[in-house]
Amino acid sequence: MAYQPIDYLPYDFANRRHIGPSPDEMAGMLRALGVDSLDELIDRTVPASIRQAEPLDFGKPLSERELLHRMKEVAQKNTPMTSLIGQGYHGTVTPPAIQRNIFENPAWYTAYTPYQPEISQGRLEALLNYQTMVCDLTGLEIANASLLDEATACAEAMTMAQRVAKSKARAFFVDENCHPQNIAVMKTRAEPLGIEVIVGNSDALEAGAVFGAIFQYPGTHGHVRDFTGQIEALHDADAVGIVAADPMALCLLKEPGAMGADMAVGSTQRFGVPQGYGGPHAAYMACREDYKRSMPGRIVGVSIDSHGNKAYRLALQTREQHIRREKATSNVCTAQALLAVMAGFYAVFHGPKGLRAIAQRIHRKTARLARGLEEAGFAIEPQEFFDTITVDVGLLQRGVLQAAVQEGVNLRRVGRTKVGITLDERTRPETIEAVWRAFGIDRTDDRTADYRLPETLIRQSEYLQHDVFHMNRAETEMMRYMRRLADRDLALDRAMIPLGSCTMKLNSAAEMMPVSWPEFAHVHPYAPANQVQGYTQMIDDLNAKLCAITGYDAISMQPNSGAQGEYAGLLTIRNWQIARGEGARDICLIPVNAHGTNPASAQMVGWKVVAVKCDSNGSIDIDDFRAKAEKHSDRLAACMITYPSTHGVFEETVKEICAITHDHGGQVYIDGANMNAMVGLSRPGDLGGDVSHLNLHKTFCIPHGGGGPGMGPIGVKAHLTEHLPGDPQGTDGPGPVSAAPFGSPSLLPISWGYVLMMGGAGLTQATRVAILNANYIAHRLEGAYHVLYRGHDGFVAHECILDTRPFEKSAGITVEDIAKRLVDCGFHAPTMSWPVSGTLMIEPTESETKAELDRFCDAMLAIREEIRAIEEGRMDREDNPLKHAPHTMEDLVRDWDRPYSREQGCFPPGAFRVDKYWPPVNRVDNVYGDRNLICTCPPMSEYADAAE
Amino acid sequence: MAYQPIDYLPYDFANRRHIGPSPDEMAGMLRALGVDSLDELIDRTVPASIRQAEPLDFGKPLSERELLHRMKEVAQKNTPMTSLIGQGYHGTVTPPAIQRNIFENPAWYTAYTPYQPEISQGRLEALLNYQTMVCDLTGLEIANASLLDEATACAEAMTMAQRVAKSKARAFFVDENCHPQNIAVMKTRAEPLGIEVIVGNSDALEAGAVFGAIFQYPGTHGHVRDFTGQIEALHDADAVGIVAADPMALCLLKEPGAMGADMAVGSTQRFGVPQGYGGPHAAYMACREDYKRSMPGRIVGVSIDSHGNKAYRLALQTREQHIRREKATSNVCTAQALLAVMAGFYAVFHGPKGLRAIAQRIHRKTARLARGLEEAGFAIEPQEFFDTITVDVGLLQRGVLQAAVQEGVNLRRVGRTKVGITLDERTRPETIEAVWRAFGIDRTDDRTADYRLPETLIRQSEYLQHDVFHMNRAETEMMRYMRRLADRDLALDRAMIPLGSCTMKLNSAAEMMPVSWPEFAHVHPYAPANQVQGYTQMIDDLNAKLCAITGYDAISMQPNSGAQGEYAGLLTIRNWQIARGEGARDICLIPVNAHGTNPASAQMVGWKVVAVKCDSNGSIDIDDFRAKAEKHSDRLAACMITYPSTHGVFEETVKEICAITHDHGGQVYIDGANMNAMVGLSRPGDLGGDVSHLNLHKTFCIPHGGGGPGMGPIGVKAHLTEHLPGDPQGTDGPGPVSAAPFGSPSLLPISWGYVLMMGGAGLTQATRVAILNANYIAHRLEGAYHVLYRGHDGFVAHECILDTRPFEKSAGITVEDIAKRLVDCGFHAPTMSWPVSGTLMIEPTESETKAELDRFCDAMLAIREEIRAIEEGRMDREDNPLKHAPHTMEDLVRDWDRPYSREQGCFPPGAFRVDKYWPPVNRVDNVYGDRNLICTCPPMSEYADAAE
Repeated sequence: MAYQPIDYLPYDFANRRHIGPSPDEMAGMLRALGVDSLDELIDRTVPASIRQAEPLDFGKPLSERELLHRMKEVAQKNTPMTSLIGQGYHGTVTPPAIQRNIFENPAWYTAYTPYQPEISQGRLEALLNYQTMVCDLTGLEIANASLLDEATACAEAMTMAQRVAKSKARAFFVDENCHPQNIAVMKTRAEPLGIEVIVGNSDALEAGAVFGAIFQYPGTHGHVRDFTGQIEALHDADAVGIVAADPMALCLLKEPGAMGADMAVGSTQRFGVPQGYGGPHAAYMACREDYKRSMPGRIVGVSIDSHGNKAYRLALQTREQHIRREKATSNVCTAQALLAVMAGFYAVFHGPKGLRAIAQRIHRKTARLARGLEEAGFAIEPQEFFDTITVDVGLLQRGVLQAAVQEGVNLRRVGRTKVGITLDERTRPETIEAVWRAFGIDRTDDRTADYRLPETLIRQSEYLQHDVFHMNRAETEMMRYMRRLADRDLALDRAMIPLGSCTMKLNSAAEMMPVSWPEFAHVHPYAPANQVQGYTQMIDDLNAKLCAITGYDAISMQPNSGAQGEYAGLLTIRNWQIARGEGARDICLIPVNAHGTNPASAQMVGWKVVAVKCDSNGSIDIDDFRAKAEKHSDRLAACMITYPSTHGVFEETVKEICAITHDHGGQVYIDGANMNAMVGLSRPGDLGGDVSHLNLHKTFCIPHGGGGPGMGPIGVKAHLTEHLPGDPQGTDGPGPVSAAPFGSPSLLPISWGYVLMMGGAGLTQATRVAILNANYIAHRLEGAYHVLYRGHDGFVAHECILDTRPFEKSAGITVEDIAKRLVDCGFHAPTMSWPVSGTLMIEPTESETKAELDRFCDAMLAIREEIRAIEEGRMDREDNPLKHAPHTMEDLVRDWDRPYSREQGCFPPGAFRVDKYWPPVNRVDNVYGDRNLICTCPPMSEYADAAE
Repeated sequence: MAYQPIDYLPYDFANRRHIGPSPDEMAGMLRALGVDSLDELIDRTVPASIRQAEPLDFGKPLSERELLHRMKEVAQKNTPMTSLIGQGYHGTVTPPAIQRNIFENPAWYTAYTPYQPEISQGRLEALLNYQTMVCDLTGLEIANASLLDEATACAEAMTMAQRVAKSKARAFFVDENCHPQNIAVMKTRAEPLGIEVIVGNSDALEAGAVFGAIFQYPGTHGHVRDFTGQIEALHDADAVGIVAADPMALCLLKEPGAMGADMAVGSTQRFGVPQGYGGPHAAYMACREDYKRSMPGRIVGVSIDSHGNKAYRLALQTREQHIRREKATSNVCTAQALLAVMAGFYAVFHGPKGLRAIAQRIHRKTARLARGLEEAGFAIEPQEFFDTITVDVGLLQRGVLQAAVQEGVNLRRVGRTKVGITLDERTRPETIEAVWRAFGIDRTDDRTADYRLPETLIRQSEYLQHDVFHMNRAETEMMRYMRRLADRDLALDRAMIPLGSCTMKLNSAAEMMPVSWPEFAHVHPYAPANQVQGYTQMIDDLNAKLCAITGYDAISMQPNSGAQGEYAGLLTIRNWQIARGEGARDICLIPVNAHGTNPASAQMVGWKVVAVKCDSNGSIDIDDFRAKAEKHSDRLAACMITYPSTHGVFEETVKEICAITHDHGGQVYIDGANMNAMVGLSRPGDLGGDVSHLNLHKTFCIPHGGGGPGMGPIGVKAHLTEHLPGDPQGTDGPGPVSAAPFGSPSLLPISWGYVLMMGGAGLTQATRVAILNANYIAHRLEGAYHVLYRGHDGFVAHECILDTRPFEKSAGITVEDIAKRLVDCGFHAPTMSWPVSGTLMIEPTESETKAELDRFCDAMLAIREEIRAIEEGRMDREDNPLKHAPHTMEDLVRDWDRPYSREQGCFPPGAFRVDKYWPPVNRVDNVYGDRNLICTCPPMSEYADAAE
């Protein structure tokens, strides 16, 4: 044999690593589908009329190694500085054990939102720890599992206050000491809803004129005030008192609950989550017990399983996945689960004593800094503070700020003459001395200081009394606790998660690694532009590529979730319409099968939703659409459509729908949830869309993190560019929707890395294979299950819907029974009962191999046979493996009195043998939990019988 | 409540994170022991006569964050260069999925050596993949699970050749084209054994004069020769032919097996393991089937479990743990398991086609480089090559080397006039152009090249045909495969591993992180000194601290394992004795209870072992010692003792033993295996020791990696300093024992980080708590089990031995039954049958919490009750949970015909409930496996009934 050069690219990320099926596997799948080639399948699936003209071309794709090399070059263009800017963002120390075992562990970051509680007990426990921490620190009874950022949390608190307040006032008071970005986002939110925002000094509050008020604690310039009086006045006026509080400060200071506050919000960023140029981090929200059913976002609660054992699950879920369209009060879905888990673990790791010590160290350092300034003749304010002081330096402001930068320190520019300084857990004596030098003071930190907290605001109550915060905090124990929780969950690192509309694709190690790099992690969102050249380059390049992919002209990275992207997109349309004198347009056409966030988002910009019918194939009824557009022509603001449709079909009428909307003066919002079926094949901007959001956490590889982080940037046509969300720090132009200018930019290396390693052809191939994989599943399951919707040539798009409704009648089997039985087979269930009740929507993505698709199909076919056995009377309608699913190890140990074998119960087709995944609980009783709402850690004694 | 500053150090690594028991827990444990304080316990345990005079003081310990900061500063003192030095070390690309999911995953790196196969099936499979890869690439039948480095492997091959050759010649031929460090280490090894090493041109081999010969392939300067003729001649002379081969080259070139070679050795470093300034990486060894029982090191083999299912385990184990003292043929124990796993996964990840493509790319780049040089008028040699060429530049050698450094490239200095260049997987076109520029050539790489491999040496055979190398290599699939394997094993991230003498303590995340940094990873071992300032600073500081800890004057970092440390220490003594004209001393006194490596190491330096008796307490019989020292006074070379003794007792006679040895002209080797009982309390150098090795992978936190890496540096008194192992590249002075000057230096950030974060007081406290933990276990188990050896005051040192021999008679229960039953309880068994047959030796270390110690004691006490039930006739002697242990999930599913319940069988005290660890196989039959030795992956068809 002579030397034979072989044609094989070992570093071809797109085809070797990201895309699941190998060329051989694909050939077999295409044969099964009866098509000759992938080209043919795509041609017969994706209508020619909507195909894009030019292929995507981003030049030569990078290998993993080249990517990391390029990424490091770009990262190093960010200048690492010590940022003492404060304003809600702080230096923090991520314990290495948390960084390695949670943040960098696919068992945590590839998990999906815990809608299926039986396979999510680990992260549910971690989130319950987080909620308990929030309740304890704030002194309130109920906390949710996190919100997108503090500014959003303020806005959500404002609208929630309006819902719960008995006061009928239309105004809301905002303490002028709130962080500017919080004020800005609340104003953005208030305006379309007709809420008047009154910003003023908290002493000037006129409680009778408002339905609620929010106070920052400590204030943005460091003031630590007691709001008990204001809150009392609010209560007297049937209004609601909200405190936006720094949880680190609450380790030393009187908690909002003790001031009588009804709600508290804030950011847990400084509990071990790097600033990341703005995000992601978890914002918290807590409230009084009696408001619990009005709280937005996800709440983890305690319930029982079918054997009466304790089990966690998302409480009050009906408020969310089934957000009730016109009745929606918020469009919030995504939490910042991974970051909340980290913050909760930070508290577990340090315990109350550790947190108190950290807070004291921060405070004492600030007192030392202040004394040095005072002794040099500077006047500081306030006199009593936690971690933030402000110094009036008159004309020298610019000089002090520049001198600080020379010392490697960013200080905050306050007004025209002041400088703000906020210290944190990372502050060293050398940092204090550097700040002094910036003020011209040559002084050595003697490391002694008194405290300068107001005596009356010293915290009186204990916190974090639950056992989990008092466990042995040796790293060995912590590591094992993290591993135990991780093992209880089923994430992408063990099995396919075939969630329709959620696109659980590979989050590759190469994409993830740069997120941990300090050049991306330790950057303040308001750092000067010349310190963030690396971020700027990355964002610009990613924006350009996303524009090429979508056919839009500009991108805003600000939205932190898909739903927030929808809201931002509609706001952008509204801004544009107001600017051209058409602000009265307020009708939004939305098809009935839209995701619930669509109408909810329309509500949030003050629009009225008009529902459009769908035909039997789930496609928009074009006649109804046209009729309603005509009827509301004068007031038509926009339509919101999803493409391909939520039923998994490429509708051929899409361009016509866009044209009708434009003809009647409306704008077209195309929901990007299904973008994974379009990239490289079709561009929403070409179809007629004016705005779309992209779920970077779906289509562009940001991991789901067990329910967040997310990123929902929006693309717009040129005419809308100047109406995109504005700078959260800016004073004019459109209002912002997030606290940070680019949302959660520390996640962007993931999406950028994905795009760079895939290249244009790779991205397109991914879309094609996503469609192939979905069609392969539809093909294998057809016959056993009815596939609800197909395109004109009989193919589905990137997902397919199985109709399981007939089994309810034929065998008494519900879609939930099938979903839980899939757990026994080692799978996360597909999306249940959405967009059609009683169905399963399956999206395998391009990253799954044929073997995994087959394992899933084998499981589904076996389940169908179990149903058949019931239908044919060979199996009881109640006492069968589907009704008892999922089975636990405990079931195996117990006496077995079932009419089927242990083997059949626990090892159905699909289930691995030695690598079997066991859910830690049996089926969870949601009703019980919602009736008996417990959203903090129950005392350990209650676990006595449930555990060993 | 006023502001109350609290006295709590949240970042105290030593006491909060590394040391397991909290202060409260310790108080409770001391009460249980009946002592008032830890001071008292230590005073009563560690004899005053051996305590060190001054406490350890290394200044203020660093927090985790401070450590990472300091570590980064030091790391950045290493200059990152592209090293094309070759000589057995190459740039390589570690696939990010392997880096994150194996190298940085505690489930892999905290695992112990797979002596207990039932809880090690995951890494055993990974190592079997590795062995299969080695067999396939070399074309030989048997491979072991790795050796320390290529040079050691050459030396082991040489001595193995002597064992297996029928030839009685005393000389061994070494191809002059072998890497210099391989030649140097073989010479070191040969000399004390009386083997004459003949270095020469392979064409000049006189086969009749030697028992074996080794050839490098490709040669160190790039020559690719066929050794078929030489090997034939060797066979005709009853001698053995060995090829030291680069596995990457074997992807294109005729394999050693096809040349008739009897053995092959080499390094798998370039299969995805960074150079790390010399290590760690896995060296391989392969041989003909009929030599298998002579092969050193660990071999993974296939056997069956008690239900007849396939199961992996270490084959021929009797050769190792029970190394037979005087009959020992090698002292090799440690493999480079973690690195072998990585290399094996690199092959799984790329498959044969990918490996071939990578090898071709490397070759073609070399051909391009060569053509550019030739066209510019340089003469290169050889004309046919794989990845290495040599250029004679005459007087310009220095200039070319310096010009290359200016270009960021290290080339190899060859002789006085030549420059060597070796390309690798990381070489870019820009690198080739940079090399050309160093030669004064301004040329653009046109990326085209022909091949320049010798036509007759093109590989004819296929390789990596097993299914595992042809699985779908999508990252999703790879990640899940790695997770499945990891989940099958029980490592420190899930449970205590209470292994006597193996010190399985915390490997903290902060210590581990820097090992991944490129500044430590991508450094060639022979890089110029001015490029490795960071390494130098770290090694110097760590050496100084280890000297302070041990009482020695100098440290050599060269040995890559404890056993290699012993060998290096004895060599050092021998070098010194030869230098002072006492080279005839050849008697080594070793107590009978020494670790088997002690006599094996003595054998390796040509000494005769004289065994010394022990008394009933396991302590050295001082009278016997004195008598034997006197008897052999003229020939006494050394004694080897372990302190505290292998029986876990601080012998008070240690100083006397040292004095006797010295009086008779001998040197004292104190084995450092039990150093975890001494650090901060007692120094071997003060006791009279002249040399000790330190197991950095035991006492100083380098993780065990599932059976390696290890680091066994030696400390010596001043008089021995100049006789320590020499530079592997040097030409005079003592010979080296490893290929790299500092062994496996990329691991040193772990130990240095540990020492810096603990500080002197923290290290001492760790020792004290290790002793407390061991005594607490001894206390809780006494009564149920007899604790074999105690000090004069009734306390044990850092470990204790339980006598389980009586149960064999009373209940038919062996120590193995207990060990396997502990798996059901969720524990790795303690050390079995060593140092006393039929016993368990338990070492909890300081890192385990009281809760974990109690869980273990509960398990042991419950096992004792099960034994009692047999003793009392309430349970059958054969049909009981101990004999059936460990129980698998399959046992639960099967029909249950046992006289005990499923509950009792599978959930004994200690076992977690929802977090239960399930071994994937039942008890493994070792005898079956050794009789039917299979050391490569069996065909998948054989798994048919074993798997799903």
